[in-house]
Amino acid sequence: MAGRRKPIWVKDAIEMVMECRKRGDTEWVSIDECDNRFLAEPLCADHDVPPFDRSPYDGFAIRSEDTFLAHSNNPIQLEVIDEIGAGQVSIMQIDRFQATRIMTGAAIPLGADCVIMQELVKEEHKGNKKFITIKRRIKSGDNISFQGEDAKKDQELIGKGTLINPGVKALLATFGYSRVPVIRKPIIGVIPTGSELLKVDEPLEPGKIRNSNGYMIESQIIRAGGSIKKFENRADEIESLYSSVKTAIEECDIVITTGGVSVGDFDYLSEIYKRLGAEVLFNKIAMRPGSVTTVANINGKLLFGLSGNPSACFVGFELYVRPIIRYWLYSIKPYLRKAKAELKSDFMKPNPFSRFVRSRMDYENDKITVKPVGLDKSNVVTSIAWANCLMVLPGGTRGFQVGDIVDILLLEDQTGSEEPWREKQKYSKL
Amino acid sequence: MAGRRKPIWVKDAIEMVMECRKRGDTEWVSIDECDNRFLAEPLCADHDVPPFDRSPYDGFAIRSEDTFLAHSNNPIQLEVIDEIGAGQVSIMQIDRFQATRIMTGAAIPLGADCVIMQELVKEEHKGNKKFITIKRRIKSGDNISFQGEDAKKDQELIGKGTLINPGVKALLATFGYSRVPVIRKPIIGVIPTGSELLKVDEPLEPGKIRNSNGYMIESQIIRAGGSIKKFENRADEIESLYSSVKTAIEECDIVITTGGVSVGDFDYLSEIYKRLGAEVLFNKIAMRPGSVTTVANINGKLLFGLSGNPSACFVGFELYVRPIIRYWLYSIKPYLRKAKAELKSDFMKPNPFSRFVRSRMDYENDKITVKPVGLDKSNVVTSIAWANCLMVLPGGTRGFQVGDIVDILLLEDQTGSEEPWREKQKYSKL
Repeated sequence: MAGRRKPIWVKDAIEMVMECRKRGDTEWVSIDECDNRFLAEPLCADHDVPPFDRSPYDGFAIRSEDTFLAHSNNPIQLEVIDEIGAGQVSIMQIDRFQATRIMTGAAIPLGADCVIMQELVKEEHKGNKKFITIKRRIKSGDNISFQGEDAKKDQELIGKGTLINPGVKALLATFGYSRVPVIRKPIIGVIPTGSELLKVDEPLEPGKIRNSNGYMIESQIIRAGGSIKKFENRADEIESLYSSVKTAIEECDIVITTGGVSVGDFDYLSEIYKRLGAEVLFNKIAMRPGSVTTVANINGKLLFGLSGNPSACFVGFELYVRPIIRYWLYSIKPYLRKAKAELKSDFMKPNPFSRFVRSRMDYENDKITVKPVGLDKSNVVTSIAWANCLMVLPGGTRGFQVGDIVDILLLEDQTGSEEPWREKQKYSKL
Repeated sequence: MAGRRKPIWVKDAIEMVMECRKRGDTEWVSIDECDNRFLAEPLCADHDVPPFDRSPYDGFAIRSEDTFLAHSNNPIQLEVIDEIGAGQVSIMQIDRFQATRIMTGAAIPLGADCVIMQELVKEEHKGNKKFITIKRRIKSGDNISFQGEDAKKDQELIGKGTLINPGVKALLATFGYSRVPVIRKPIIGVIPTGSELLKVDEPLEPGKIRNSNGYMIESQIIRAGGSIKKFENRADEIESLYSSVKTAIEECDIVITTGGVSVGDFDYLSEIYKRLGAEVLFNKIAMRPGSVTTVANINGKLLFGLSGNPSACFVGFELYVRPIIRYWLYSIKPYLRKAKAELKSDFMKPNPFSRFVRSRMDYENDKITVKPVGLDKSNVVTSIAWANCLMVLPGGTRGFQVGDIVDILLLEDQTGSEEPWREKQKYSKL
């Protein structure tokens, strides 16, 4: 059984964890499987975009100088000498008072310096010749998408570590990435502990509950960008737990246990850390929920000992495991995205430790608002499902009222923050 | 070639599309594969949570009345008669001046009405008996998580159509869903058209570009919650395109084409709609980009004819296809989430049609800000990758300046809005 533990600041806990951070290596996947992966190389334009001057409309490529005097009182007639569909290249150079029919996306023919939209001309046939009549002046460069105006060859468009979204995927296709370099996902071992835990398909028994933390953590891992390796849910029996943890460390990049880190008589994790020769970074943090969150380092691999209480487990993951996963994936913003929000309901509890309240943020016009959801107790599970942010109430504060501006950490945002939430105030005593 | 087209309002276009909406049916998947799927049934508690009164801490279950006079000057001694680990049930009822050692998550034993945390007692042994000393009064109910305080049996916790996130997954596990009822994803056929399109692994050729729209749309479909069926990218040859579209309609729930809906000589889609006997809902919308977006209905199946210009294609999908997918998935908020934001840079172009500008929204304290990204041209591809929202500038407006409050539609948000963005002003003429 552990003795009295000394709590540390949230910011110090995050810093100690991040000192053990590592980067993932690269693997190549088909472009069809790259969604929501993280780019392992900067994406550079290997050619100008557009690769040639082209027409953004269906119309006629012409010479602007021919329209210099064009007016509704002075219509100008041009002979149409060729037609260019998208993907075609015209070999006909247009000369004085000539035009070429051109379709959206087609390359501007030699001689032309502008395009007039189809809706603005009158077309007519004389014999086997075709003419258009123009009643307005068109300036040089009008209606041309110029080579390189979207992107220049060799320009870095997207940085390494960027999450691949539909727009990034479009660029990957544009530059011919049929296979895409992405960061290999970290393999994260998950070991739920606790004799009270039933499997999800087992009927309830007196004194027992179904294992929900394991599934929740797995879902958090997927959302953060990691991959999962499940380990059997062991009863609180030290030898089997020791062997699970040992195997997980060998087979995974990171290991998470849930439960067993408190001060109960069957909380074996601290004993297991000792046997494994792990360096325990900390075993108490000045936060609610999740104060018992324990992190250890064994030969450079992190073991996260999260609380067995669902809300504490959830918060511990988001604050300490998520940035390790995102840093592995080369994110430059590995922490939960920070914002401020106007509190929409009173929260009058004092906060001896910094409190991370499962809450729902919303938009009211151009302002962000926030409201706690459900019961604020560490062992509560329902409020997690309704929450889309954590409201952070710093330790040492007495309570908050409607209209107060509070810090929030967004749970469903993929952008992240460069810096974590940190305590600002200093107290004489933790 | 289509004649002059009559543009309709964005709001009318959305309404006409949504009149053809359909709901998906249910399929069951393993709980390990349910992430980011949409629940096909409301999630109800099949038992109270917690299922029994339990201890949220490691400590001692006691009778509050025994501590009535406890004080630092009047320590009370209780005999420890049993020990309950999590998952165990004690058969020993505690009586006057007795206590039971209890671990986090364990059921409160008979006779006890409160728990004192381990840190607040002094333990000692006398012979083979164990005692604890208490120096403060504990009230009835202190440190007990009561049966049903988190959720009551039969309470509906999560509605049908909810996206499964880590918190929802925890509830599914809690209530024994080893298999989860989710809405079957709509199968969406994607047919990129255009003779200028090269495959992603083909080298560039004069006048040609690689097909990026197809990949972009596929990624948008994945993000919206649909599944993809690819159809070969056909050159602008009407017979092969007709046969692709016909097959896609037979094999898919929804079909998307990109390109071929403009007024060019090789824009065959309107001819193909005719041959298929499709009812064209509209073929011009008062919006930029994407004014040529065309939607047809054939025997109750929607055919979306999106523009071949990447930005127009992107916007057309998000405004018209996404809500159809989300409604299919039973979302009660199928439209892009709306908010307002403070403009951080001037946008002085007039807006004859409503303009959807690829932009980046950010948080500044509790306020939302927005800034356009990259070039605002329909054929631009890079700005899509950088955008996380569409800034909406209503048609008929002259330009917007720093500090103006504008509408935005969030692209990376999973919450959505119940109502779409709609034009507010009415103009005499479209």
